[in-house]
Amino acid sequence: MASVIINSQLLPEEQAHIPISDRGFRYGDGVFETIAVQGGVPYQFEVHIERLTKGLAALKIAFDAQTLAAQAKQLLRANDVKEGLLRIQVTRGSGSRGYLPEKNAATGALCVLETMPMPQISGKPATLWQTRYTKPSPKSLPVQFKLCQGLNSILARMDADENNCFDALLCNEQKHVCETSSGNIFWVKDKILFTPAIACGVLEGSMRSAILRLSPWRVQEVDATAGQMTRADAVFISNVAWKVLAVNEIKPQGIHWNSEALAAEMHALIEQDIASYTQQHAGQWL
Amino acid sequence: MASVIINSQLLPEEQAHIPISDRGFRYGDGVFETIAVQGGVPYQFEVHIERLTKGLAALKIAFDAQTLAAQAKQLLRANDVKEGLLRIQVTRGSGSRGYLPEKNAATGALCVLETMPMPQISGKPATLWQTRYTKPSPKSLPVQFKLCQGLNSILARMDADENNCFDALLCNEQKHVCETSSGNIFWVKDKILFTPAIACGVLEGSMRSAILRLSPWRVQEVDATAGQMTRADAVFISNVAWKVLAVNEIKPQGIHWNSEALAAEMHALIEQDIASYTQQHAGQWL
Repeated sequence: MASVIINSQLLPEEQAHIPISDRGFRYGDGVFETIAVQGGVPYQFEVHIERLTKGLAALKIAFDAQTLAAQAKQLLRANDVKEGLLRIQVTRGSGSRGYLPEKNAATGALCVLETMPMPQISGKPATLWQTRYTKPSPKSLPVQFKLCQGLNSILARMDADENNCFDALLCNEQKHVCETSSGNIFWVKDKILFTPAIACGVLEGSMRSAILRLSPWRVQEVDATAGQMTRADAVFISNVAWKVLAVNEIKPQGIHWNSEALAAEMHALIEQDIASYTQQHAGQWL
Repeated sequence: MASVIINSQLLPEEQAHIPISDRGFRYGDGVFETIAVQGGVPYQFEVHIERLTKGLAALKIAFDAQTLAAQAKQLLRANDVKEGLLRIQVTRGSGSRGYLPEKNAATGALCVLETMPMPQISGKPATLWQTRYTKPSPKSLPVQFKLCQGLNSILARMDADENNCFDALLCNEQKHVCETSSGNIFWVKDKILFTPAIACGVLEGSMRSAILRLSPWRVQEVDATAGQMTRADAVFISNVAWKVLAVNEIKPQGIHWNSEALAAEMHALIEQDIASYTQQHAGQWL
């Protein structure tokens, strides 16, 4: 039986309950992080904590994220996680029934830490489905953070699944490429690495930032149509589970790429960086 | 101690917990309804159940909403609710960790029924704050239903509160009027009642539909800028708690209206309809 931590308290999974009055349950009023654990070390932990902190500030949820390293360490040990995912979710907690949070809420924020197995993926190149759903605008929501507002991603992902595709490609209302339902997107053309700029309405992915930091190619963050992507030499997608995954086709257009070699090159650089991060931070975590 | 119903089971409020694996908590993956109860009868119950059913279909959540009338009746009796709110939330339940729901989820949908006191409002005319947040597009999400994705409304409502306004006015990216964070909006000009069309990105409010049905003025559903609204004879907003509430100012523009007389006329028609509905449906509920 795995353990979880709710509001700093280590509990067996079967006792992992939250009240129905929690605003995360009522309104998705919170943010979360999913962190890859390798060799017992959560990769780029400080990058995730920084994004979580910024997301909480954008939502005006008062919570001290500095307490999370000790809790994460306690949970990874309790569950003896060597390889897997660490998930941290912080919501505004209970305390008001309408959209306006009470100023002096009875409870503070709610914080849940869990561990999960790393999803197994085949690693074979992915086919994307250009979904009819558009990505919500950054003028509507601070979409650069992992908001507990997953419905747009869920609807897009189900749309891809119904069309026998691995993931969905989401564009914004201006028909510019943003990301997939579950990851960031990149393309390489003439030794330049392109990826949509955050301002297009893009998640500030932790694996995205690692790729931009490690890229062997010059990097350009762009505001581009899907048409520009179609002329690329290679296309790949990233998140904490896939790391880097080649894209070989986009449907229904039926555009094909041979992305495997360049994606494998980037994937190897990420794996190298993870190994090096794990080694450097082992003392802190193990 | 009030009771709640979770998955058809009547429980004391203190036992009203849900698992952290619920997709409502993780992703806001669900829909809800808030229904006004007067004289022990939930007003327009069938209108709410129809919207809930359509919302669940849009999200592809399998759930039989026809069982809800008996449960609602049981809960209203258990809590002896004469005047108040009945809240029904249905989420996709537990069963998968990523955005894609598992095809054969271990659990089905999760359904929670609660009762709450009717919020007390002064009834004095409201001042609205034109917020910088835009309403999410109906191309991104089926916003005509009450999705458990409240963050846009929450951010807009907090923005209004910080500017000492009662509620926020939300426009879409095309700068066309949609609604407030918590209600629908209407204006009367030369004996015509205007309200933004659902296609603009507007909640299909139950009180909105009652107002359109009972209006003493000819009704026009429009795609309009805030400028068109400013030339109105009266402006008012609606939801299940306020019924009809006059708007006397919009900030920061500082446009003023004398909306009280026409808003009161519409409010009286709604009160009359509620009284008549309660009388007609008493046998079914009491």
